[in-house]
Amino acid sequence: MASLGCNSEPQSDSVSPFNINPLDPQEFRRQGHLIIDFLADYYQNVANYPVLSKVEPGYLPKSLPISAPLNPEPIETILQDVKEHIIPGLTHWQSPNFLAYFPAANSTASFLGEMLSTGFNVIGFSWIASPAATELESLVMDWLGEILKLPKAFLFSGNGGGVLQGTTCEAILCTLVAARDQKLCQIGRENIDKLVVYGSDQTHSAFQKAAQIAGINPKNFRAIKTTKSSSFGLSPDSLESTIQLDIEKGLIPLFLCATVGTTSTTAIDPLGSLCDVAKDYGLWVHVDSAYAGNACICPEFRHFIDGVESADSFSFNAHKWLLTNLDCCCLWVKDPSALIKSLSTYPEFLRNKASDSNKVVDYKDWQISLSRKFRALKLWLVLRSYGMNNLRNFVRKHVKLAKSFEELVCLDKSYKHVCEDCANELNRELLDSINDSGVVYMSHAMVEGVFVIRCAIGATLTEEQHVLMAWKVVQEHADAILNKYW
Amino acid sequence: MASLGCNSEPQSDSVSPFNINPLDPQEFRRQGHLIIDFLADYYQNVANYPVLSKVEPGYLPKSLPISAPLNPEPIETILQDVKEHIIPGLTHWQSPNFLAYFPAANSTASFLGEMLSTGFNVIGFSWIASPAATELESLVMDWLGEILKLPKAFLFSGNGGGVLQGTTCEAILCTLVAARDQKLCQIGRENIDKLVVYGSDQTHSAFQKAAQIAGINPKNFRAIKTTKSSSFGLSPDSLESTIQLDIEKGLIPLFLCATVGTTSTTAIDPLGSLCDVAKDYGLWVHVDSAYAGNACICPEFRHFIDGVESADSFSFNAHKWLLTNLDCCCLWVKDPSALIKSLSTYPEFLRNKASDSNKVVDYKDWQISLSRKFRALKLWLVLRSYGMNNLRNFVRKHVKLAKSFEELVCLDKSYKHVCEDCANELNRELLDSINDSGVVYMSHAMVEGVFVIRCAIGATLTEEQHVLMAWKVVQEHADAILNKYW
Repeated sequence: MASLGCNSEPQSDSVSPFNINPLDPQEFRRQGHLIIDFLADYYQNVANYPVLSKVEPGYLPKSLPISAPLNPEPIETILQDVKEHIIPGLTHWQSPNFLAYFPAANSTASFLGEMLSTGFNVIGFSWIASPAATELESLVMDWLGEILKLPKAFLFSGNGGGVLQGTTCEAILCTLVAARDQKLCQIGRENIDKLVVYGSDQTHSAFQKAAQIAGINPKNFRAIKTTKSSSFGLSPDSLESTIQLDIEKGLIPLFLCATVGTTSTTAIDPLGSLCDVAKDYGLWVHVDSAYAGNACICPEFRHFIDGVESADSFSFNAHKWLLTNLDCCCLWVKDPSALIKSLSTYPEFLRNKASDSNKVVDYKDWQISLSRKFRALKLWLVLRSYGMNNLRNFVRKHVKLAKSFEELVCLDKSYKHVCEDCANELNRELLDSINDSGVVYMSHAMVEGVFVIRCAIGATLTEEQHVLMAWKVVQEHADAILNKYW
Repeated sequence: MASLGCNSEPQSDSVSPFNINPLDPQEFRRQGHLIIDFLADYYQNVANYPVLSKVEPGYLPKSLPISAPLNPEPIETILQDVKEHIIPGLTHWQSPNFLAYFPAANSTASFLGEMLSTGFNVIGFSWIASPAATELESLVMDWLGEILKLPKAFLFSGNGGGVLQGTTCEAILCTLVAARDQKLCQIGRENIDKLVVYGSDQTHSAFQKAAQIAGINPKNFRAIKTTKSSSFGLSPDSLESTIQLDIEKGLIPLFLCATVGTTSTTAIDPLGSLCDVAKDYGLWVHVDSAYAGNACICPEFRHFIDGVESADSFSFNAHKWLLTNLDCCCLWVKDPSALIKSLSTYPEFLRNKASDSNKVVDYKDWQISLSRKFRALKLWLVLRSYGMNNLRNFVRKHVKLAKSFEELVCLDKSYKHVCEDCANELNRELLDSINDSGVVYMSHAMVEGVFVIRCAIGATLTEEQHVLMAWKVVQEHADAILNKYW
């Protein structure tokens, strides 16, 4: 193989030889142990940091050199900088008092899995590039699919299959592109500008982004209005009338993204009846249960995804609530060949007997990128280290805490909660005041014009005491604001 | 916030409480140290494993349970399974004898950075979600940009900017979508099916995939023929005549992906004159130097990207040859607003004062996904732990070894190397035989119909002895095959 060196000589006179080994086992061991202790200390103290970082824009360049060093620096110096300059700039998603957005529940088992994956650093694009990476992923996706009681058509054992993506946006993009190309194959590529995609006004922005990337005309992106009367779920009637209007205009319905557990209010779209409408008009249905899908490992919550059996694809993020660190989005499809048709490239330099035999899965054809990490290791370690009983009880604990929090809110007559009339500006001020305290971090949503404070319970370390404290903080800051104005 | 718990009661009678702490500092410490030692032992032994895994398709499901366990299993049991069932199924990219594809050079510093990122597990989509994650990334990208002597227009200090993507495919997809939407804004969205993209027949398949995902008509994907006479670089004249033909057909030229260091032969496209042609026709030029860009940190190799100053975007993979584990693709653009226009979504639930102020970078708008890891940590640790002098010497060492290997091949009169007539079937048999030995792993390419064995030197642990051994293995297996036939 031609090499860069054939064309140009290194300046060998001025150069000292490279005589360090960046994977020296002794040094790896020494420094690795240092970091483990560093992180164990971090977890010990994480509840004490201000949850939302208090730094100002531009704080970091002021504290660090403006160029990369020529010579090595010891790990101890670097860790000192992490302590002094990085940690104050973190918003601590692992704090028990992190109640914003959705949780990013990490765990020791997941961390260990990520370490193994990083240590091996195999690039498992094709089966041959590391058979274990592919086969463990297929196996674990079948494990999880059975736990979620997905219909067999989504499992490898039923000619469907699962794949680990980075995020929901990737999962939606891959399925949308598969659906798009399948449709364009029937109607001709020149009709791409007529394709229409559907969601509700509660659907996550990841869907809008995926549609933009896939080349769907932004004018053909339908965010169908939902209302309180249907608990902000997408109405099948609204979907059907919107589709019919589009058809009358000469447009071509393509794809529905249904949601189980929306971001603003954890609304549930009625999957079964939406799929019925979608099938009548030839739409691909993807079910995004990024957050709520995690709860469906518990039998008593499984009904939230009833109807998924009629969908074409389904995804949820183990990196939200299943004790797995980012990134780990689980996607199942009924028809892998649709994905593969759109996403496959098979250049000569990747050809190999196993792929040629069609007896193996090459996950490069199920995702955006060629290269991929061995993500299955962390999910496998989580499932085995904790076991399904514990994982279910972990979810149940948080559901129970969320109910306790709701009861506290209801008990206090001076507060009215989600979706009732209230002074948006006061609530915005209240949220800022709560977050500036550093004691807890919550986020917000707008629901039918009402500014709503969201309290999302799901961080690994969140216990009853943190929820009680969170409510106390809300009360104190609300009282202070009310006293200021009245 | 409404919770799943409001709608359905957990089956509390049948359920034991969740009383383990998945981030317990003591247990984290104990298990973390175990894995560090496990991986240190792995690096100690990695040279002794067969480089290419010897397992057969379907080997793993036979060895592992078919469903997830209900109860926890100790880490020691799981690690035993990793030893017995996972490691034999790995193709060892960290072996000093891994000479296939391109390297995936890992290092202790990068591993530590990934550990910190995984441990903190912050989801830095917006500045506010963890200011340090955003600011360290911007800083490190400016550091690296200066080391590569990128024109100031690519740096934040010059109103451009850098971002860490997962892979080259993502980098190309994001820039292609930005270019597409910019063009469609001028000519009308209904013309999407007329857009044409250009590369050479040596351009990486990632470009084809990105174009497919972005909705470019596959008929408008031009892989312009290259020849040995121009060392497989893309000829500006060929580009221009192809563009002119497309314009005559009523099509609209959009995007050129130029490559520095192609996969098959490390060919270099002539950036300067290609950019001249591209500018005349209003094309966005992306420079993909996935592998070779790493070498450009050395002043004596910097000339390979001469001409990049006229391009619109530039990327290389630190996860190939800059001692950084997957994934870490460095992308710079001159006009971040073009990326942001295509990739930005700003739903109410993410609104915050810092983003509203426009004083901060929100990297969610520079990439496909919303969620993102704190990738900058590992790159920062690599640059600081080794220093630029060592990183340059690391590259120089491999370039020198590649030259030595080339000399060995040239010295031996019985071998003719790249691009000369030879028996493809014999070479294919030779490569299979070499790889089946388990002693080294190489891959192949087809160059003008010739089957070429690639020897890509760049793994972290590869030293002179491994290159000498690799040549010995080639000789032995070639002799055996020749003896069999003659």
